[in-house]
Amino acid sequence: MATEFDLIKRFFSRPVSAGLLGGGDDCALFGVTPGLQVATSTDLLLEGRHFFSDVDPRSLGHKALAVNLSDLAAIGARPLGCLLGLGLPAIDEAWVQQFADGFYALAAQHGCELIGGDTTRSQQGITLSVTVFGEVEPSLALRRNAAQVGDDIWVSGTLGAADIACRMLAGEIPLDAALLQSTRRALEWPTPRVELGQQLRAYAHAAIDVSDGLLQDLGHILAGSGVGAELHEQRLPAHPALSGLPKHVLPPEVLRRAVLAGGDVYELCFTAAPAQRAMLEKIGQTLGVALTCIGTIRKESGLVVYDQTGTALSDLPSGFDHFRI
Amino acid sequence: MATEFDLIKRFFSRPVSAGLLGGGDDCALFGVTPGLQVATSTDLLLEGRHFFSDVDPRSLGHKALAVNLSDLAAIGARPLGCLLGLGLPAIDEAWVQQFADGFYALAAQHGCELIGGDTTRSQQGITLSVTVFGEVEPSLALRRNAAQVGDDIWVSGTLGAADIACRMLAGEIPLDAALLQSTRRALEWPTPRVELGQQLRAYAHAAIDVSDGLLQDLGHILAGSGVGAELHEQRLPAHPALSGLPKHVLPPEVLRRAVLAGGDVYELCFTAAPAQRAMLEKIGQTLGVALTCIGTIRKESGLVVYDQTGTALSDLPSGFDHFRI
Repeated sequence: MATEFDLIKRFFSRPVSAGLLGGGDDCALFGVTPGLQVATSTDLLLEGRHFFSDVDPRSLGHKALAVNLSDLAAIGARPLGCLLGLGLPAIDEAWVQQFADGFYALAAQHGCELIGGDTTRSQQGITLSVTVFGEVEPSLALRRNAAQVGDDIWVSGTLGAADIACRMLAGEIPLDAALLQSTRRALEWPTPRVELGQQLRAYAHAAIDVSDGLLQDLGHILAGSGVGAELHEQRLPAHPALSGLPKHVLPPEVLRRAVLAGGDVYELCFTAAPAQRAMLEKIGQTLGVALTCIGTIRKESGLVVYDQTGTALSDLPSGFDHFRI
Repeated sequence: MATEFDLIKRFFSRPVSAGLLGGGDDCALFGVTPGLQVATSTDLLLEGRHFFSDVDPRSLGHKALAVNLSDLAAIGARPLGCLLGLGLPAIDEAWVQQFADGFYALAAQHGCELIGGDTTRSQQGITLSVTVFGEVEPSLALRRNAAQVGDDIWVSGTLGAADIACRMLAGEIPLDAALLQSTRRALEWPTPRVELGQQLRAYAHAAIDVSDGLLQDLGHILAGSGVGAELHEQRLPAHPALSGLPKHVLPPEVLRRAVLAGGDVYELCFTAAPAQRAMLEKIGQTLGVALTCIGTIRKESGLVVYDQTGTALSDLPSGFDHFRI
């Protein structure tokens, strides 16, 4: 029977760069550029809660790292390395191999080497914990509390697709095969905006990733910065697969909720002075990432969303909360 | 109903020191002394696998951090901070409060502040992930591959009690109330040897913590260093509660297995030149930690354990493996 050490040796012992002490000692070691601080984040991903039991293991490996890289992106840090905790009910070697492939592929893409971790048998479902490390000049880190009155509010990429795919797979809304096919990638293969986050350091004031939904995460920026905001619904970059669908496939209220409050979106929401618009558009073009200005930071507290008639929405959908049922 | 954010705010938002950016942003930030590297380790602890469902939440909070601090100790690093991932089936506020108290108390003792984490609802049991960070001069880090032929082999503290307590609680050996009472603390309130690890940097060659049992963990040093070892069973520091018991309470083979192979021991096993004996004894006295010389590193590969008659044990118990049943 395979053991914990076999598992690590076979699937999680790819070589690490010089200067890093990888898995195989009590700790992993890594260096930091003098003058920079370490940025770190950890996420717990549980079967049945954060992913479905039949998820493609390759996409799960990708996503487990992606959601953490997204946190580094949101603070503007450059990735240095990561740790993986893996609890499995049993060892299915093909599954582990594919999981490792998905994880390592994204790690390689962002220079975020797997330097250590922990494996254990889980008597419940698959349990994942990923911790990432990056480095950032502390005075340039993109914090939540730095939005300024008059700032534009921007969001990268598109919104809503992951939420729709997730709700179809969970049986919360009727399954439409074509719509699932066109939205599922957003759920299972999110692209962390790592390079964008680093480029934004010099131009943005506050930033956050939209993992808990736009309204909730923007709300953290507003609360942290002591400001309010207005958003314009028609400017929100809904995923193209969500537009032009008949009501019985995608009711308007489901679409609105997905765009405004749908979680599992690893895009950045950030604020910047209007004087930075041209520079930000250039950054977006260079990186091939759509950047959309969706509203304005204002002095009055609260978050107001105007619909296309200019009317403030009276009943905003709430965001994702892991402890609300 | 309490939400994820309430939970973090109420129980896990104690102030952090200047220079640290704690929970409440996408990432936590911390600085590192110039010239030192970051040492990091992560552990996943699952209900039913690593702890019993009815465990004292205060001791669980303590132990979840202790097992990770023990990894910092084993490499000789000074703790800097930690992250906590917490998956709970439901929020029992009294439980969470006690868990947090146990966690924070040990963190304060070692200057290892909780700077971030993740909370989520678990549909299975309680799920914990802890990641610690420390700093260490890389050339002085206590690695597994640095044992030298002729080195003494040392172990701190005592062995066997956690294994006996765990087996009694799991029903694998008959429960003896007095024995449980005298061994349970070793299982539930382990003392990570953080200060010892730092003191050993200048004097020891290789080190590891004995979390998977002495034979298995010493085996990692031997394999990593390309050497062998001989141990003397009568020198092994069995926990005092395990001595002098009648056979029907503690059969000799159960005692032997507990001492040689029992896991969940957060003591350090390390090797050092015989010339360091006096210095090591002084360190042990200063810190109030028993340090016992239990054997010798030798050139011939393999691990030989001599019993009190000088006979090599022919059938060594194997260590703990999270994937072996």
